[in-house]
Formats: sequence, C-alpha cells, structure tokens
Amino acid sequence: MSDDHQQQANIGVVGLAVMGSNLARNLASREGNTVAVFNRTQARTDDLVREHADAGFVASETIEDFAASLAKPRTAIIMVQAGAGTDAVIDQLADLFEEGDIIVDGGNANFHDTIRREKQLRERGLNFVGTGISGGEEGALHGPSIMPGGSAEAWETLGPILRSIAAVAEGEPCVTHVGTDGAGHFVKMVHNGIEYADMQLIAEAYDLLRRVGRHSTSEVAQIFTEWNDGDLESYLIEITAEVLKQTDADTGKPLVDVIEDQAGSKGTGVWTVQNAVGLGIPVSGIGEAVFARAVSSKPTQRAAVRKTAASRPQVQEVGEGFEDDVRAALYASKVVAYAQGFDLIIAGASEYDWDIDLGDMARIWRGGCIIRAQFLNRIVEAYEKNPDLETLLEDPYFANAVAEGDAAWRRIVGIAAASGIPAPGFSSALAYYDALSSDRLPAALVQGLRDFFGAHTYQRVDKKGTFHTLWSGDRTEIETEPSTH
Amino acid sequence: MSDDHQQQANIGVVGLAVMGSNLARNLASREGNTVAVFNRTQARTDDLVREHADAGFVASETIEDFAASLAKPRTAIIMVQAGAGTDAVIDQLADLFEEGDIIVDGGNANFHDTIRREKQLRERGLNFVGTGISGGEEGALHGPSIMPGGSAEAWETLGPILRSIAAVAEGEPCVTHVGTDGAGHFVKMVHNGIEYADMQLIAEAYDLLRRVGRHSTSEVAQIFTEWNDGDLESYLIEITAEVLKQTDADTGKPLVDVIEDQAGSKGTGVWTVQNAVGLGIPVSGIGEAVFARAVSSKPTQRAAVRKTAASRPQVQEVGEGFEDDVRAALYASKVVAYAQGFDLIIAGASEYDWDIDLGDMARIWRGGCIIRAQFLNRIVEAYEKNPDLETLLEDPYFANAVAEGDAAWRRIVGIAAASGIPAPGFSSALAYYDALSSDRLPAALVQGLRDFFGAHTYQRVDKKGTFHTLWSGDRTEIETEPSTH
Repeated sequence: MSDDHQQQANIGVVGLAVMGSNLARNLASREGNTVAVFNRTQARTDDLVREHADAGFVASETIEDFAASLAKPRTAIIMVQAGAGTDAVIDQLADLFEEGDIIVDGGNANFHDTIRREKQLRERGLNFVGTGISGGEEGALHGPSIMPGGSAEAWETLGPILRSIAAVAEGEPCVTHVGTDGAGHFVKMVHNGIEYADMQLIAEAYDLLRRVGRHSTSEVAQIFTEWNDGDLESYLIEITAEVLKQTDADTGKPLVDVIEDQAGSKGTGVWTVQNAVGLGIPVSGIGEAVFARAVSSKPTQRAAVRKTAASRPQVQEVGEGFEDDVRAALYASKVVAYAQGFDLIIAGASEYDWDIDLGDMARIWRGGCIIRAQFLNRIVEAYEKNPDLETLLEDPYFANAVAEGDAAWRRIVGIAAASGIPAPGFSSALAYYDALSSDRLPAALVQGLRDFFGAHTYQRVDKKGTFHTLWSGDRTEIETEPSTH
Repeated sequence: MSDDHQQQANIGVVGLAVMGSNLARNLASREGNTVAVFNRTQARTDDLVREHADAGFVASETIEDFAASLAKPRTAIIMVQAGAGTDAVIDQLADLFEEGDIIVDGGNANFHDTIRREKQLRERGLNFVGTGISGGEEGALHGPSIMPGGSAEAWETLGPILRSIAAVAEGEPCVTHVGTDGAGHFVKMVHNGIEYADMQLIAEAYDLLRRVGRHSTSEVAQIFTEWNDGDLESYLIEITAEVLKQTDADTGKPLVDVIEDQAGSKGTGVWTVQNAVGLGIPVSGIGEAVFARAVSSKPTQRAAVRKTAASRPQVQEVGEGFEDDVRAALYASKVVAYAQGFDLIIAGASEYDWDIDLGDMARIWRGGCIIRAQFLNRIVEAYEKNPDLETLLEDPYFANAVAEGDAAWRRIVGIAAASGIPAPGFSSALAYYDALSSDRLPAALVQGLRDFFGAHTYQRVDKKGTFHTLWSGDRTEIETEPSTH
C-alpha cells in the first residue's frame, strides 16, 4: 500500500474517532481535496474507507506511509485526544515532516500547550497550527466554525482548505486566521466559556418558567420555540426546545425530568475562568456557570443541605408578562456574558501579542459553532462601527437592548431571590452591569481596609500620588510609594 | 564580626522589610530566643539593630556569617518578596546549610512553588517549611496567625518557636502543623480568598446602607460598631468602623469618599479561584469578590458605560428594619463564603494528600489574622461535633443562622437588584444556597444540551448506566460508555 499512493493527498487527518472521521469526510466532499487518513488502530481506518468508498480516501497502515502519501507542503490535521496523545502524534509527524510542512492540531488543546508546541516546531522549521473547531460531530461533517492560529505562512496553504469545509454564514465562510501561535485555541477556549454562560442562562430561564411560571415542559419548549423567532434566535435556544420536547420512551415522562441533574464538564470552562482571573478580566457569567455545574455535581452535599435547610420560601405569584420578563432577563444577561468574553479576547491578545480582529471573531461564530446566533451579527456591526469599543455594553444597540430589558431583568432577579430559585447567572450579570454603571463603588472602602491592615496604600480622587494613613500611629496621611509586600 | 557570634542564635530572619523586621522583633521579645538577622542591603540590618538595641539581635553582613551564627539545627525564616527573590535566598541558604537544618519561607508563596521547593530540598537532606503568616505588620510584631506546612521533623524544632510568637486566642496559640509540604501556603491562600469574600460582603453592606438606607458615613460607622458586638464580631468589622470614622484632613470629608474606588489585589484571591475551579469547588463568594475588584479597576470602561447606560433605576424606599436585614444578609452570605472556603481546604487536602484538621484551621484563625472573628468559634464547634460534615451549612448552628436570616437575605437581594446597587456577593451566596437546597436543578437541561450537540451522554435518575439519545438519528436512547472526545 505504501508506494502506490505517494504524494497523492493535499491534506491528511490523523485520528479517526467521530470528530476526525467526520472532518475527513467533510474534507473529501469538497472539490479539489484528496484526503489521506490514518488511525493508530487500523480497524477504524478500514471501517471509514469501506463505509465511504466514494470519498476517495488515501489510507495508510503506518504513519510513515501516511506522511509519504501527502503532497508538499505536507499538511496534516491531528484529531486525537488533547494532552499526551497529541504530543505523541506531533512528535511522530515532526520526525517525518520537512521544512515548510504543516502540522495542525484540531483538538481542544490548552492554548498554553499550543504556544509551546508552535515554538518548538518553528525552531525545527515546521509550521504548527493549533485550531479550534466548533460544531460537534454534525459541524465537523457539514461545516464547523474554525479558529486557526499559527503563522501567516501556514495560513496561506491552510486557508483555502479550511475555507472549503467551514460553515457559511451570510455568504462568508466561518473561518479566519485568528492570530499567531496559540490565538486560535485561546479564542476557542473563550467560545466554550461563553457557551457555558449561554447554557447556564438558558437553564435559569427554563427553571423559572417551570417553577415560578408553573409551565409544563412542553409549554416551556413552546416558549423557547417562540423565542427562537426573535433576538434570541440561536442554535442553543433551538435545541433547548428540541430537548424539552423529547419524551422518554421508558417512562413516558419528559426526558429532561429523567436525566440526572448533574452537569459535567470537559475543562474549557475552567480554563476560561483561570485565565480570565489571571488577566484581571471579570467573567462572572462564565464563572457562575462553572460554579453552578460544580454545585450540581455534589449530590451528597446537596442531600445534606436539603435535609437541614429551612423550609423553602413560597414561590412568588406571577402574572401575565412573566415570560417576557424572563426573556428580557435572559437577553440582557447574554449581552453581559458576551461583553465579558470579548473583554477576555482583548486581554489575551494584549498579553500574548496577537492581532485579533474582534468583529471577525463574531463573524466566524455566526455559523457552524455551538453559540451561533443572530445576535452575533449585532456584535459584527458594533465592531464595524467602532473597533475600539471599551465594552460591548457601550455600543448603542446593546446599550439600548439592556435599557429596554432593565426593569424586567431587575424584577426577575428579585422574584428568583424571593422564590428560592437559584439564578446566579442573571443576578451576577445584573450586578456587573450595575457596578459598571455606578458613579461610585464601595471598592473605596475595600482599598481603605487594605491600607489599614496591610499598608497597601490608596490613590485619591482629588490629586495624583500614592497615599497611606498611619492607622496604628497618629492617623495622619503620608504620601508614599506603593507597598511592595 | 564573623567569628564572635558563631552559633549563638536559635532562629534567624532573612529579609528585613516591615514584615521581616517585625517578625524578628516579635521573636526576639520571647524568652529563650536569640535572633540572627540578615538583609541584602546592609543599611536595613543596621537600622533594625540600632533602633532595637535591647532585642539582642545577632547581625551579619554576609549570608555566610548569618548561617554561621545559627545553632544547629539551623533554622532560618525567609521574609522576602515571593517568587524569584525567594528562590535566590533559598539557593544561597541551601548551599550553606547542612542535613537536618530548616529553611522556612514565611512569604505569600504559591503553594505549588512550596511543594516544588520542599521536594528539592528534601532530596538534599534539608527541611523546607512553607508557612502562611497572617496579620499584617501589626500581627507580625505582636502575634500573627501562623500556618506552617513541611515535615513533622521540622515541626518538632519549629513548633515551640512559632508557638512562642503566635497570637493567642481562647488560651491557645494560633499556630498548628497544617500538613506536609505546601499545606500551609495552601491554607493561607484559602484564608486570603475568604478575606476577599469577607471584605466584598462588608463593602456591599456599606454601599446598601449608604445608597439605599441613606445613612451618612458616620452613621454607617456607628452601625458597624454595633454589629461588632454581635455574631459579626470580627477584626474586619471593627476596622471598617475605624476606616469609616476617619476624616480626611485636606478636605474635611470622610476619607472613604476621597479614596479612589479601585480595589487592587496581590494575587492570592486569583490563585484561590484558579485552584478552586481546577478542583471543582464552587467558591462563588471569593470569585465574585475577585471579579468585583477587577470591575472597579477598569475606569475607562466604567466611564463608557456610565455615559451610555439607561437612566439608573429609582432607589427603593426602605423602612425600619432595613439595617437588620442588611446585617442578616451579610451574616448568611459570610456563612456561605466560609462553607465554600472549607470545601476548598477539603478538596486540596484530598488532591495533595494532606491530613488537615478543619477544626484546627478555624482555631488558628481566631487570633492574629485578618479574618479573626467570634464566628470561627462556631466553626471549631461544628467540626468538633461532626468532623465529617458534608458542608458547614449542614451544621445545626449554621443551618439555623441561615434559616433565621433567610427572609431578610432575600429581601436585600431583591432591593439591591431593584435599586441598581451591585450586590454580587450577597446574590451569588443566596443562589448557591438555593442551588444546594433545591430538589431538582436545571443542570439536567444543561446535560441534555451537552448530549445533543456533543454526545456527552447523561445519567438517568431511575437506573444505573450512561445513556445517549440519537438526536440526529431516530431519537431513540442507547446505553453507552461515557464519550471521550
């Protein structure tokens, strides 16, 4: 098998689990592509080639043959589990590839790993591109949103191939060169973090509609279907309706009532929060989503508190308009979550020296990926009008959207608190907005306390300089350099 | 100078900035201690020795002389800036010290560094002890709360010395051997995280009393003074009153109104959140405190939103009892923040194999440190009654405390939301409590969505196993292994 297919393929895929297989099939379906495939376990390669004989795959039994089957510059996309597995495949390919060849990691890698790998391979003359790919199995097959990092040189070869397989939204392929080295995986991380926030907000809306609005599951499904016709139109709202419509065959109950109420996670939400706090970006929407999943996954703790907690508060009576209020709270909270997510991209770009076009990020998320939404067009427009927005909340459209929902948002947070329904996403988003729009924050007191116990000093509103009050002395104020301990 | 003081001192301090000087003076003031001192810049050593001639310090001009001035086993506490500075001093001492000698890092080190350093020095036969020291400058001088890690062998020598200088609460010194290697710095990190949450909650209470309760700063100072006589009795409540009472000499205004409302941070809050989310522990109280400081420190973003935000909502009218409601909300939220912090200690102990006595942590925090409070006696008692509490919220005293404040807590969160006063600490604590005490959480929907777009599978409430619905197929359910991609 090794000699007869030398240098036939313009692109290769290593790792043929569902995502890899689907991506390979997607590539093979586009004109001009010949796709080399390789999997450590041979049977998987055989299955793929047999089941999709018309795809014209160039299959190899060894990674050496796989490398030999690629035309130059060799371009291979690795679709294996993130971590050590990825490093192993990269090492193998790097030994076989030559200067100018391109190794692409399409897994959910930590962008710090991607930065490290890119640097190591660059020193060996190879191109390494870490790329985010969102859209799940269906997206991989029919058109994902693709977020590649790496060098401009690699993008020249890779760009046309990725454009050919990406989702299309408003006539544009959902892929762009995000930035160098780890930029793609960083942006994919933020995408996933926003996805956490989106789902948490949807879950809170659902919970309120059921427990406060006293709607049946199918009524809530109907409400989400209606919401999907307006500002909220998005994949996650659409599939929420689908999940809620699903009846469990065993019990005849709504499936959502049969699913254990413990949400798992794969780690990108955690990474988002870890990096955000490190960069000083308050991503409370994503943070509360990560916390909420963690709380849900503590069954013994939950049982203990249920046993000892006070009698639960009376659920509030609500009237007409409650559903609209929930919708408004959801939309306003969503705006906040995206504003925070885009702030994190700005901070990452500054920290790691990436030239990221914010509008382009919204643009490539409009199709293929999990957070695809009408809403993203508004973000594209906002950055078109003003690329230097201090925050999305400053853009007139979003400022207005939040203003219109303001009263409803406050009502819903109040009703949730009074009724004992956890709404950490809604309430933290509102608190964030109120903090940003307050004239004065009690952070002044925090700073005063820090000066009292730790001599951490403070600035004054009325003159420049750094000051400290001699709290354990005569309580006069001195001008000082910032404390270093 | 080098020969005449050989092996006179039983303890040494390297690094004589304020914290180091004060710790050295504290050590020297205790019977039986002779304290060797060394600072890279000689002038600082000279100043200390001259200003405190009666302390009997053994001063050295070189680190070699410093090492020679210590009796065996040599025991030296490093009080320099965390990070590279600490590593440099450790390296120097390690070259001079001999088997069984003890190097103590009393700075605010990252516990991951402490684990690494302890391992490296252990391999060279040296004892390395990372220890948390809380209490600021005053604590260092008069008696801090001390949280040492390291080996049991090191604790044998170090224990009596640290006991002699620690704060005393209820007749007990505020120091114990927390656990091996990085346990001390881990617990200090959590202590600081809790301190962030405590201050944020105090700041929210203050803000509500001023902006909703329409109290003057001096009235709020008086309210905090009164609160300090009850359940809330604590150092931070006490000094809040002190800070609020302070009048700025320049302007005649309350100092808190002159301090820039941007709260800084030194990083331990960030570490707490990063490690907590990595360990799957929802520390929303600390998280929101870190986020709130970050928001406060974005002046241009705040100005932009203030300019474009909707007209601010009307501040709610409140009547008698409002101050008591705020107090109850503060106390209940504080209970939540501590419950989350102790959960993090449990998770850290499990992850890093430390045998940490939770009651002892509350015990050593009762004096000397920034979060010292009456309240900690209740935590000591809770773990005495039941060392295996699933959460502090399960303990009858705390369950009751929260139950008593329940209605007030809900009112305050509602009033804050309606009035446009950010109260992320109060509201996220309430949401956490409501999540733990809900029979069912909408996490089931999140898990259903994850199964829909990513085949992440789900568990069922009615039978064991892992399941997946064929969402893009005929929507039947199959039993499966958990997805690995």
